[in-house]
Amino acid sequence: MRLGILGGGQLAKMTVAAAAQLGIETVVWSLTPGLPASQACTLTMVGGLEDPVVQAQMIAASDVITLESEFIPADILLQLQSRGARILPTPASVAVVQDKWTQKTALSAHHLPVSPGRALPDLASALDVSKELGFPLVIKTRRLGYDGHGTFQVEGQTEVEALFRRLSPPPDLLFAERSIPFIRELSVIVTRRQDGSLVSYPVVETRQPQFVCEEVLAPAPINPTLAARAKTLAEAAAQALNLVGTLAVEMFLAADDSIMINEIAPRPHNSGHFSIEASHTSQFENHVRAVFDLPLGSSEMASSAAVMVNILGQSETTITPLDLAPALAIPGVHVHWYGKDAVRPMRKMGHITALADSVEQAQGQAWKARRALRF
Amino acid sequence: MRLGILGGGQLAKMTVAAAAQLGIETVVWSLTPGLPASQACTLTMVGGLEDPVVQAQMIAASDVITLESEFIPADILLQLQSRGARILPTPASVAVVQDKWTQKTALSAHHLPVSPGRALPDLASALDVSKELGFPLVIKTRRLGYDGHGTFQVEGQTEVEALFRRLSPPPDLLFAERSIPFIRELSVIVTRRQDGSLVSYPVVETRQPQFVCEEVLAPAPINPTLAARAKTLAEAAAQALNLVGTLAVEMFLAADDSIMINEIAPRPHNSGHFSIEASHTSQFENHVRAVFDLPLGSSEMASSAAVMVNILGQSETTITPLDLAPALAIPGVHVHWYGKDAVRPMRKMGHITALADSVEQAQGQAWKARRALRF
Repeated sequence: MRLGILGGGQLAKMTVAAAAQLGIETVVWSLTPGLPASQACTLTMVGGLEDPVVQAQMIAASDVITLESEFIPADILLQLQSRGARILPTPASVAVVQDKWTQKTALSAHHLPVSPGRALPDLASALDVSKELGFPLVIKTRRLGYDGHGTFQVEGQTEVEALFRRLSPPPDLLFAERSIPFIRELSVIVTRRQDGSLVSYPVVETRQPQFVCEEVLAPAPINPTLAARAKTLAEAAAQALNLVGTLAVEMFLAADDSIMINEIAPRPHNSGHFSIEASHTSQFENHVRAVFDLPLGSSEMASSAAVMVNILGQSETTITPLDLAPALAIPGVHVHWYGKDAVRPMRKMGHITALADSVEQAQGQAWKARRALRF
Repeated sequence: MRLGILGGGQLAKMTVAAAAQLGIETVVWSLTPGLPASQACTLTMVGGLEDPVVQAQMIAASDVITLESEFIPADILLQLQSRGARILPTPASVAVVQDKWTQKTALSAHHLPVSPGRALPDLASALDVSKELGFPLVIKTRRLGYDGHGTFQVEGQTEVEALFRRLSPPPDLLFAERSIPFIRELSVIVTRRQDGSLVSYPVVETRQPQFVCEEVLAPAPINPTLAARAKTLAEAAAQALNLVGTLAVEMFLAADDSIMINEIAPRPHNSGHFSIEASHTSQFENHVRAVFDLPLGSSEMASSAAVMVNILGQSETTITPLDLAPALAIPGVHVHWYGKDAVRPMRKMGHITALADSVEQAQGQAWKARRALRF
């Protein structure tokens, strides 16, 4: 059995490790060589994915193809599929999710709670919508946004006008949604098979003070009723969007205990990295199992609590040898270093997961380890 | 950081996975291509290890070199070392351990309990020794024995004579030891750093009804006093032999509660595979940490009980696609499939680890999964 993965970053690298344990060989496609996953996969393919030769090689080398990013244009996925590739999640489901506006309307059509929004074909519509939804208003690009890129919070009509002047957006670029005054951001990892059977992981809290995820607390420090509601919503979203494999459902928890779905990532997700050490089956192994239509493993936690902290780049530098020793000396700490070629500000260079009896204790250990790592 | 591994089998494959998590690239040397580890390492080198070009490439590509088998002749390891390789465990310590007779005399010199034995330079000495040690007598080859290969149990003088006629052994081939009427075989995995600091894993029971390990029960169902004694012996053996990295100390437990050291394997070992899922830090990650002189992780179990069952080949066949589904459907079961190119009788094709609240329960699940796997 051979798994093709479109993308060679850390998500692909951790998927490769899970596949290797099951004896599944991996073929990683990436645009450039030397990415994290290429150090550990069976075969790497480099080149433009619109190139028919690259496509043919990828199809020939893989029994199933999956993706580590929703940014690959759906028409390329459909092209691969029409040439015989078995792609999971399906190109049709990825097409809906990769456009955040169609994602939102699909969730809404299934009566799932999302922040009210409107497409913004032009400035006039944006000014109308801002009257309807009020300020602050969140304006987002429909495609390719991540870690805060492509998200704009505007406070008044002059800011809307300035944004439109700056972007000169084509009519299908932007949409708006009402800003949600959340008190916590939650995430639930779900793994779903094609027959609709699924497992969902414990609800976690994600903290992204500068839009980039810095910290994940597992389980989220919320009451069981709220946690059960978040899980139910996440599972319903996975069903509604007909996704296969591991996905993340990111949610906002408001002060009145209401929960809204923010965004769906149709792939293993940063908020599920804790599962490698803290869960009976990791999000990556369950992803591999799901795309090969194998029974899913338990998503329960094997540890009482886990905290994951991302190792984010601070400045633009080349990699110097990393001294792992001070971090590894801290009890309960697991270090993942992705092996990227260069450090960039806010780039995810690795992550730390600390296991402990309580979230507070795990948090203390994880941050102590993070501070001990210099690179 | 780059780790060279001499050997490309399943032990190398699982070491590669542990190294990759820490961002350590791996260079695997093997005599033939297509072995399990080559599917997942950064670089594979194929060719005779006595070839100076292969040696030079391996040294250039690795910051530290380790081994997955004690069968690589110590003089080749010494040659690599003299050409600048940093090899751990050290060639000197491997030289002592890879000859089971010098291993035994070294343990004995450190007052560690081993079965009494004698070198057998010729038939006359063998007949003398058999009078001294009695029958049944165990005769072993000093080097290259494994899984029962190279071990002969003889019941009388005519059998000794027949064995000598059959083998025509050179004077340094054989030694004899008193047969130990054990009631259980125990093993302790130890990981030791160069400064002598070490961790040891819980004592496990290994079962090898046909010389090949079939099953490992963790923790061993023995009383805490015995377990503590076995741990102490194992740690003392690791110190006595000055080994660095992960090693296994295999022991016999007799009906009178005495414990004797049977053999030492100076590398990660089949009896420690349970640690991948059941322990806070696996024997493989601790091996990598030790050879890079990094702080060792906790060797405590994260699960109450674990049972590992080897997936042994039954007949000589090529690999047909493995249906993992029935095994993965069993709760608590983790399947490792090594990806070997062909099935041979008693060949280790993979293993299953089941986690549960008790050893009995884990054993039930592991064997249920084993029976469900057909290949």
